[in-house]
Amino acid sequence: MSRKTLNPIRAIVDCMKLTPNPDKPMIALSIGDPTVFGNLPTDEKVLQAMKDAIDSHQYNGYAPSVGYLQSRESVAKFFSCPEAPLAGKDVILSSGCSQAIDLAISVLCNPGENILVPCPGFSLYKTLAVSLGIEVKLYNLQPEKSWEIDLQHLESLIDEKTTCLIINNPSNPCGSVFSKEHLQQILAVASRHCVPILADEIYADMVFPGCGFHSIAALSTDVPILSCGGLAKRWLVPGWRLGWILIHDRGQTFEPEIREGLVKLSQRILGPCSIVQGALDSILNNTPQDFYSNTISLIQSNSQICYTALSTIPGLFPVKSSGAMYLMVGIEMKHFPGFQSDVDFTERLVTEQSVFCLPATVFEYPNFFRIVVTVTEHMMVEACSRIRDFCQAHYRFSSPEPNDLDQ
Amino acid sequence: MSRKTLNPIRAIVDCMKLTPNPDKPMIALSIGDPTVFGNLPTDEKVLQAMKDAIDSHQYNGYAPSVGYLQSRESVAKFFSCPEAPLAGKDVILSSGCSQAIDLAISVLCNPGENILVPCPGFSLYKTLAVSLGIEVKLYNLQPEKSWEIDLQHLESLIDEKTTCLIINNPSNPCGSVFSKEHLQQILAVASRHCVPILADEIYADMVFPGCGFHSIAALSTDVPILSCGGLAKRWLVPGWRLGWILIHDRGQTFEPEIREGLVKLSQRILGPCSIVQGALDSILNNTPQDFYSNTISLIQSNSQICYTALSTIPGLFPVKSSGAMYLMVGIEMKHFPGFQSDVDFTERLVTEQSVFCLPATVFEYPNFFRIVVTVTEHMMVEACSRIRDFCQAHYRFSSPEPNDLDQ
Repeated sequence: MSRKTLNPIRAIVDCMKLTPNPDKPMIALSIGDPTVFGNLPTDEKVLQAMKDAIDSHQYNGYAPSVGYLQSRESVAKFFSCPEAPLAGKDVILSSGCSQAIDLAISVLCNPGENILVPCPGFSLYKTLAVSLGIEVKLYNLQPEKSWEIDLQHLESLIDEKTTCLIINNPSNPCGSVFSKEHLQQILAVASRHCVPILADEIYADMVFPGCGFHSIAALSTDVPILSCGGLAKRWLVPGWRLGWILIHDRGQTFEPEIREGLVKLSQRILGPCSIVQGALDSILNNTPQDFYSNTISLIQSNSQICYTALSTIPGLFPVKSSGAMYLMVGIEMKHFPGFQSDVDFTERLVTEQSVFCLPATVFEYPNFFRIVVTVTEHMMVEACSRIRDFCQAHYRFSSPEPNDLDQ
Repeated sequence: MSRKTLNPIRAIVDCMKLTPNPDKPMIALSIGDPTVFGNLPTDEKVLQAMKDAIDSHQYNGYAPSVGYLQSRESVAKFFSCPEAPLAGKDVILSSGCSQAIDLAISVLCNPGENILVPCPGFSLYKTLAVSLGIEVKLYNLQPEKSWEIDLQHLESLIDEKTTCLIINNPSNPCGSVFSKEHLQQILAVASRHCVPILADEIYADMVFPGCGFHSIAALSTDVPILSCGGLAKRWLVPGWRLGWILIHDRGQTFEPEIREGLVKLSQRILGPCSIVQGALDSILNNTPQDFYSNTISLIQSNSQICYTALSTIPGLFPVKSSGAMYLMVGIEMKHFPGFQSDVDFTERLVTEQSVFCLPATVFEYPNFFRIVVTVTEHMMVEACSRIRDFCQAHYRFSSPEPNDLDQ
C-alpha cells in the first residue's frame, strides 16, 4: 500500500533546488495553511470552547467511532437547510477532512473501479484513490470560464465502472466558486449516469461578498451526495483534525449499505480527538460573525491586490478568484524561453527573488502556479513586486518555437 | 473495503439480548475504557498541559504528517533505553494506537500475505488486516501457563507469506505480562524465520508491582520491531487519539522502504490533533509518579478481589492477571448445561444479575469471558457476588456429555 501511496507535492517539491536569495527574506506563497503567517489567528471563543471542554472532564473517554451524537447533531443543525435537511445520524465525524475523503472514497468505490477528479485539483484525491487500487480519471476545468467544469469532457469519461464524481467547491487550487446554474448542470450529468457525488466543501462559505456559495446538496433532487468538510479552513485550525461527512441521501440510494459501510469503516481507527468534539457545538454556535467576515475580507483584499498586480505583468495571466484562499496564475512559457516548465520557473523565482509559489504541475496542470493569498498585505505587495522584477528579467518578446530551431 | 471490515465485538454484542434485571443497577464490566466509571480521572497536570498548548497559540496549524519533530523527540526520549535507543526520526505520531497498528500492518504486509495474531486477542488486528486483504493466522496463548504463547504452534504457522508477528504485551483481553525469558523465546522464533514484529504495547508499564514490564525491542538483537503505543490507557485519555509507532530497526532491515513507507502512509490522512501533540512533552515529563502508581494500585486491588472471589465459585476458573486492566475467566460449560456458549452465559448474566462481561467468543476464544477491572471497588465486589449467585443458580454437578445423550 505504501508503494502505491504517491504524493505529487512531495515528489516534485522535494526534488526542487529551493535556495533563496540570501539578500531577500523568503516569502512562501506555497503553504495551504492559513495559520503560518500569524495574521489569521483563530477566534478566542474557539480556544475558550476547547478549554471549557477540557475543564468539563467529560470528553476524555472513547467517543463512538462516528463521533458523539451531540456533536454530530450540532454539525447537522449548523448545515441543515430546508432543501437539504440533516439530522445527527447523517453526520460522521472524522480525523480531519482528509479522513472524511478517505472514508467516502473507500465506501463508494471498489478496487478496479474509477472516480472522476478535477484537473487542476487537490492532489489528495488521487493519492488516496490510487493507494486503494481505484483508477482516477481527470476532468478538465476551464480557466477561461472561471474554472467551470468542461461538462462534455466530464461526461465523456463516465463508464460503467465510474462510482464517484469528486467536485471541489470552492476550489483548491483555483479559488473558484461554482454558480448555482453550473452546479445544477453538474447534477444533471451525475443524475443521467447514476453517479454519486463526493463534494469536497472544506472551503464552504469562504467566498467573497456578492458571490454566493451553494452547497451542491441543497440543489440535488435525486443525486446522492457525501459532502466533506471540517474546521480546518473556516475556523483556521487545520492542525486540530476535525472533519465530517454529511450524508445527503436523495431517494435512499445509500440505504443501507453506504451508511452502514461508513460506520464500519469508521471503526478501523476511530474518529477525531474527543476534546475537539466536545468543543464543537460552542465553536459552531459562539464564533462571532465578525471573525468569519474579517477572514474573508483579508483574503479578498489580498486576492485583488495580487490579481491586479500580476495582470499587468507581461507573460503572466492570473485567473480571478472568488473564494477559498488561492489564485492560479498562468505562465506564457513561450515568452520565458529560459525555463523548461512551471517547476523550473518557480524554482528560479526562489533562487532569485526568494518567493516560492507551488508549480501547478503538482495539480497535474503544467504552465501555471498557485498563490496562497492568506499572507499579510505587506508580504502580498512585496511578493508581487518581486514576481514583476523576475518576469521582466526573463521575458522575451517572442521566442522561436522548438520546430524553428530544428530547421 | 467496508464489506471486508468486520468488527466481531459489534457483530456479536449487537445480536445479544441485553435486558438488565430492573431490580438491580447495571454493572458493565465489558467496556475497555477506564474513564467511564469516573473513578480514574486523568491527572490535572495532563489537562493543564493541554490548556497551555492552547494558550500558546503555537499548535493550530498543520503539523508534519508524522508529527512535530519536538513531540516525536519527546516520545523518543521517554522510551529510549541503552539497549534500544530512539531518536525523533524513529517515532511516527498517529491518530491513536489504532492508526499506529493500521499503518504498521499496511507498511509490512501486502494483500495475500499473512500475519500471526494472538488467540485470544484484541479483535482490531484481524479487522484491519482482513479489510486490507491480508490473511490472519491465530496462534494460541496458554491459560495454564499465564497466557504464554504456544511457541511450537506459533512456529508451525509461519510460511513464506508470513510478513508480521503481532504480539500484545501486556495483553488485552488476558491481563497477562510476558517474562523476559518468554520474550526472548519469541524473538528467537521471529529471528529464525526473519519475521518482523509488531508489538502492541499500549499497556506498557501498566503491570503490577514486582512484575516487571519489558519492551520486546529492548531484548532484540536482530529482529526489527515496530512498537505501537499511545496516551490512551496509561494517561487515561483514550478519546484524545494520540498514538505512536516506535521504529526499532536492528540491522537496518527497515531501511529505507519501511521507514519511507510509514512516512508516505502517514500523508494519507495526517496524524493526531496538533494541540495534543503540543501538550505531549509536558504530559510525558510532568505527570507525577503518584498518578501512575495510584492507577496500578486500583487495578491490582480490583484484579485480586475479582480473582479471589471467582476462584471459589464452582464452574468458573479465573486466570490470574499481572497487568493491563483485564482478567479472563473460563467457564466449565459442562457444569452449566442450561447455556449453549459463553455468549449465552453472559447474556443471561445480564438478564438475571445486570452484570455484563464480554463473551470471549469476540476474541475468538469461546467458553471464557473478559472482566474489566477499572470499576470502583464497591462495584467489583458487588459484581463478583452477583456472578456467584448466578453460577450457583445454574451450576449442575455433572452434566451428561452430548454423546451420552445420543446413546
